[in-house]
Amino acid sequence: MAIKVFGAQLSTATLRVRAALAEKDLDYEFVNVDMAAKEHKKPEFLSRNPFGQVPAFEDGDLKLFGMNPYRCEMISDFAIESRAITQYIAHAYADKGNDLIIKDTKKMAILSVWMEVESQKFEPAGSKLIYQLCLNPMWGLPVDEAVVAENEAKLSEVLDIYEKRLSESKYLGGDGFTLADLHHLPVVKYLLGTKVKKLFDARPHVSAWASEILSRPAWIKTTTS
Amino acid sequence: MAIKVFGAQLSTATLRVRAALAEKDLDYEFVNVDMAAKEHKKPEFLSRNPFGQVPAFEDGDLKLFGMNPYRCEMISDFAIESRAITQYIAHAYADKGNDLIIKDTKKMAILSVWMEVESQKFEPAGSKLIYQLCLNPMWGLPVDEAVVAENEAKLSEVLDIYEKRLSESKYLGGDGFTLADLHHLPVVKYLLGTKVKKLFDARPHVSAWASEILSRPAWIKTTTS
Repeated sequence: MAIKVFGAQLSTATLRVRAALAEKDLDYEFVNVDMAAKEHKKPEFLSRNPFGQVPAFEDGDLKLFGMNPYRCEMISDFAIESRAITQYIAHAYADKGNDLIIKDTKKMAILSVWMEVESQKFEPAGSKLIYQLCLNPMWGLPVDEAVVAENEAKLSEVLDIYEKRLSESKYLGGDGFTLADLHHLPVVKYLLGTKVKKLFDARPHVSAWASEILSRPAWIKTTTS
Repeated sequence: MAIKVFGAQLSTATLRVRAALAEKDLDYEFVNVDMAAKEHKKPEFLSRNPFGQVPAFEDGDLKLFGMNPYRCEMISDFAIESRAITQYIAHAYADKGNDLIIKDTKKMAILSVWMEVESQKFEPAGSKLIYQLCLNPMWGLPVDEAVVAENEAKLSEVLDIYEKRLSESKYLGGDGFTLADLHHLPVVKYLLGTKVKKLFDARPHVSAWASEILSRPAWIKTTTS
């Protein structure tokens, strides 16, 4: 099999890559990186990703990697960023499965702005909330209510802008589902299992959009396989 | 004139956009946003960028905006992120000026990974050093030596990976100068005016690369006009 994803089951960046492959109806091999055994810091993995963070990606002779931004110290072995990989999948397999990008240069530029909003605004606030509200309790660590309040306020600001955007456009990137929506899936899924769900429920367009993208067959396949 | 850039003279994101326009040999109108007068928080500018951060960009009927990632609290009115704008310029004006992207899908994917390294690794460490070493002294604010030491260590890690990459590839993105290099220009230029220059000087391939990209006519034109 030509395509391989080296990652971790719960990693949001790994999930993004797998969701894109599922939308494109592509077969691939998932290689679980044993992070407890520090496999991601050994030479074989470092040759795939010099930063030693999952996921890494292979398509024949092409090797790509995701990475963790320096803002996310807590989870420094998990990549957050995997947009180069999903964009490669969307471009290289443009004729397979569902379209995830737009050919028109101007429309694609607008889609790119909304991918950046996800990466720079939605994801940083969202992933901090996931740590506080999902992972810290699971790991027996205390919840920092000040961090929760700060990031609820940031997420509210972003969701207000999404509510306006989604009242004018069916999806964030334009008329159809694209990478700009797909990149949100892992964090939206985690957040809706927390008290932060109220921020989505309070915004009808955001709430309908979240329900719709989470019910896509490719996402259901990704999270249940 | 069809293309307009709404920004601030010293903003790194504004400089990136102007550098891309100069490489493409495109004429544009630069509109200085009076941030002291909070012009970027007024309705006219908010209609261009709902986050109220510079730069914004216009090409005929197309409007794009940059944004500030939530990790950079100090400078919340300045966008750091402007890659959607530079990528639009590179794609929409592919036949003008110097090539900044690569047509081959696999080579373009590798270029995209290095754009992400800049955005997620180089820029966060680099911009914190610029604040501590350039702007705080200028503003009469104290320098936090712990922040300096932490980000020097991060920048060193990134530059080690660059040194290896640049020993195998003339430029970060591939054989030719591309957006992956161009996006570094503003931060590299600022850093070389500080004590952090030693981190560049200690790495021969990084040092040669930095000298070369800073001496490109389009960059000189951008910083002197």
